[in-house]
Amino acid sequence: MRTGLRSAGEVSRYDEEAQVVVVGLGAAGAATALEARSTGASVIALERAAGGGGTSAMSGGVLYLGGGTALQKACGFEDSPEAMYAYLMASVGEAPDEPKVRSYVDGSVEHYDWLVAQGVPFNPVFHHGVSGEPANDDGLVWSGNERIWPFVEQAVPAPRGHVPARNHQAGPLLMEKLLQAVAASGAQVRADHRTLALVIDADGRIEGVIASHFGEERAIRARGGVVLATGGFIQDDDMLRAHAPMLRRCSFRVGAEGDDGSGIRLGMAAGAATLHMDAGSISLPVTQPWGLKRGILVDATGSRFINEDAYYGRLGEHALYRHEGRAWLVLDEATFERVDYPREVAAVGETPEELEGELGLPAGSLAATLALYNRHAADGHDPVHHKLPEYVTPLVEPPFGAYDCTVESSLYAAFTLGGLHTRTDGAVLDPEGTPIPGLFAAGRATSGIAVGGYSSGLSLGDGTWFGRLAGRAAAAART
Amino acid sequence: MRTGLRSAGEVSRYDEEAQVVVVGLGAAGAATALEARSTGASVIALERAAGGGGTSAMSGGVLYLGGGTALQKACGFEDSPEAMYAYLMASVGEAPDEPKVRSYVDGSVEHYDWLVAQGVPFNPVFHHGVSGEPANDDGLVWSGNERIWPFVEQAVPAPRGHVPARNHQAGPLLMEKLLQAVAASGAQVRADHRTLALVIDADGRIEGVIASHFGEERAIRARGGVVLATGGFIQDDDMLRAHAPMLRRCSFRVGAEGDDGSGIRLGMAAGAATLHMDAGSISLPVTQPWGLKRGILVDATGSRFINEDAYYGRLGEHALYRHEGRAWLVLDEATFERVDYPREVAAVGETPEELEGELGLPAGSLAATLALYNRHAADGHDPVHHKLPEYVTPLVEPPFGAYDCTVESSLYAAFTLGGLHTRTDGAVLDPEGTPIPGLFAAGRATSGIAVGGYSSGLSLGDGTWFGRLAGRAAAAART
Repeated sequence: MRTGLRSAGEVSRYDEEAQVVVVGLGAAGAATALEARSTGASVIALERAAGGGGTSAMSGGVLYLGGGTALQKACGFEDSPEAMYAYLMASVGEAPDEPKVRSYVDGSVEHYDWLVAQGVPFNPVFHHGVSGEPANDDGLVWSGNERIWPFVEQAVPAPRGHVPARNHQAGPLLMEKLLQAVAASGAQVRADHRTLALVIDADGRIEGVIASHFGEERAIRARGGVVLATGGFIQDDDMLRAHAPMLRRCSFRVGAEGDDGSGIRLGMAAGAATLHMDAGSISLPVTQPWGLKRGILVDATGSRFINEDAYYGRLGEHALYRHEGRAWLVLDEATFERVDYPREVAAVGETPEELEGELGLPAGSLAATLALYNRHAADGHDPVHHKLPEYVTPLVEPPFGAYDCTVESSLYAAFTLGGLHTRTDGAVLDPEGTPIPGLFAAGRATSGIAVGGYSSGLSLGDGTWFGRLAGRAAAAART
Repeated sequence: MRTGLRSAGEVSRYDEEAQVVVVGLGAAGAATALEARSTGASVIALERAAGGGGTSAMSGGVLYLGGGTALQKACGFEDSPEAMYAYLMASVGEAPDEPKVRSYVDGSVEHYDWLVAQGVPFNPVFHHGVSGEPANDDGLVWSGNERIWPFVEQAVPAPRGHVPARNHQAGPLLMEKLLQAVAASGAQVRADHRTLALVIDADGRIEGVIASHFGEERAIRARGGVVLATGGFIQDDDMLRAHAPMLRRCSFRVGAEGDDGSGIRLGMAAGAATLHMDAGSISLPVTQPWGLKRGILVDATGSRFINEDAYYGRLGEHALYRHEGRAWLVLDEATFERVDYPREVAAVGETPEELEGELGLPAGSLAATLALYNRHAADGHDPVHHKLPEYVTPLVEPPFGAYDCTVESSLYAAFTLGGLHTRTDGAVLDPEGTPIPGLFAAGRATSGIAVGGYSSGLSLGDGTWFGRLAGRAAAAART
């Protein structure tokens, strides 16, 4: 048998067993365990680190939820499943998984209540002026491109970033609460267990796993199903090279050490299909505070390439994939502000021509771009890239300056979005679309809601939602 | 067992057997069969269609070869393995497989001689003025971006498109000659055999295949190895959606019906890893005749985005992936010519402003782009996108016109480049990089030399070269 796969005949006896065996105890694994336990199923959760948390505990803690959650209502926002569905289908990439989007949207209001019931606190306060992660305990925030062209024309916007209430520690808080709930649920947590292989029987069913515990191999049987909740592969250079090589250029890899794709590889070795392994989330957080959206972002030819009020995920994806990570945010004296995230001033000039010379841009290129931008900005609009009027103002007051937004020397934060092909209920599918009996997956080990076009909170959001569905399905399954 | 995989225990007897079983009889499969036979190994070649040929027989027949082939020398061109290696490593995508590039380059001179020895004729005549596929019997042609910025700065250029000598029928001729050689070699060709499954033994070795022959299942044993040479997946909508969804937008899918990814799926079901499944070759053949390179290609914001003298593969890849397939080739009265490939004139205007209005581009955008271009063109250079001086001329003579190069309504020709992860010798690898015993692959069922950044001839080139290596390895293997 190949690495990562063990035939049942080789397993003389199992050290322990449960109805559901969860591999990886981040947010997706915790939700899986909780939901399986809620049906009465026995659960063993394996975690390779000394304790649960994973990347979720290092994250900003934002969950992308909507359709009219209690938190949205408490903050005075209207939302509908239809609006959320329309936004997601328009924004999350070229080929979204429609049944998954449907399930996620339809479950979102209840899923928020479920999180609250697990003990995760949210303050009913809307946070204005920053996207993604508030610098205080506010609970609701814009975390995507809902108000931004072209999406604002495709769906009624609403803020959907739900943030657990602990200033800059929302991710740790989320996992603290979920892990407390897991402990209270009666699920058996096995830390320091690294899963080495899936056990496959002669009929091709997954009946358990082999894990390494301080160098000793332990065989653990899953009577219902194994659920892979092991995270993405941003920490594995070989997998990045194979599937998403551009992400290697990003200076900051968003992921715990365990995000090495091990669970995805286990699934592949068992014959699973993958989806969108090239897809990534790439954040370029340069327009924080929001006043910086009044600048223009130009590439190595001195051309604008996007509405600068787009969400960081969209800025980063376009800058990296479409412009090779060669970008500068150009401001004038009137619009210059200090950035919230560390970022260097690349050059300053008294005229656009001087600035373009300092930046090494082609002669006349930035000047032409600025002239066209200013011509329309004088009328308060941006027909070229459709930035919101509130951020459109002529850039005419010297000196002119540019923040360095190149991938070589500024902050790009990246993680992977591709993974195992799962059905909405978490069943892992083979290349013909047939479930592999006994095998389930959730979270960033799978391809989920976003297959591109990331909005913050979609990974914690879909990881916990589809983790719950996988936990339910595995609890009901029999190998 | 899952679809596409049969356990050895289920196979009561084999209908026939050979040392090497080749699945798919296009160029890669033919080369595999020939090389295996040349070592004395017995060979059965399975082809789902009524006869061999596949996509290779529908292709332009160009083989990308170099390093100083007899044909290059006969045409008076110098080339070196170093120059070819440098060009390929710089051009074929973000993460090329260096050992494969090395092997391909080092084998190229001999591989040309091998093709000639199989009976494939090439005329020692260099063809100027057209890239890719000459409209006559000339044998050598530019088929990539060798002379184009930025590659011209990275490697000494040489034409490397080797074209079998039959006007516009080079692909059919290539396959006619290779199939004649296969027939003469003693390889057993089984047409109308569609391979349904790989047979795997209890140790995870591939020991044969199950094929359907007019509805009847036949089991065929491979004593040494099965070689998957089944082509890419441009004809399979589900796989495109899963891996390369943007390619679905292209109007012309370059592939025989058999390019449905079946062999890739067979490998995946057996636990094989894949590479770069998102990668594609996208041709936008708009600058034929070459005089049209004097135009400028603009996107939906009226901006130029590439040196227009780039090879069609590069034009198409940038237009589709980076500019959503929204592109127009703008010319003036002095540079206008009829295109060789069908393409509509989208609009005409007496001024740049009138043309941009007709095209629906933002006011002033195309005019600003043209002004900047013309300013530098008056000095005979293009510092913004680095087009060769011979194609740089001010566009100032009315009327101005634009050819429609949008993906919605013009010719984009696409095929897939991603596939099974193989070692240089053709061994199919699992997700941990370990060979799956008894399983080999070649051609577009694998990820090969180009993982992006396509030059014409790389698929017939790497398919035949790595087909030969796979044939040799399978002939030497024992399951």
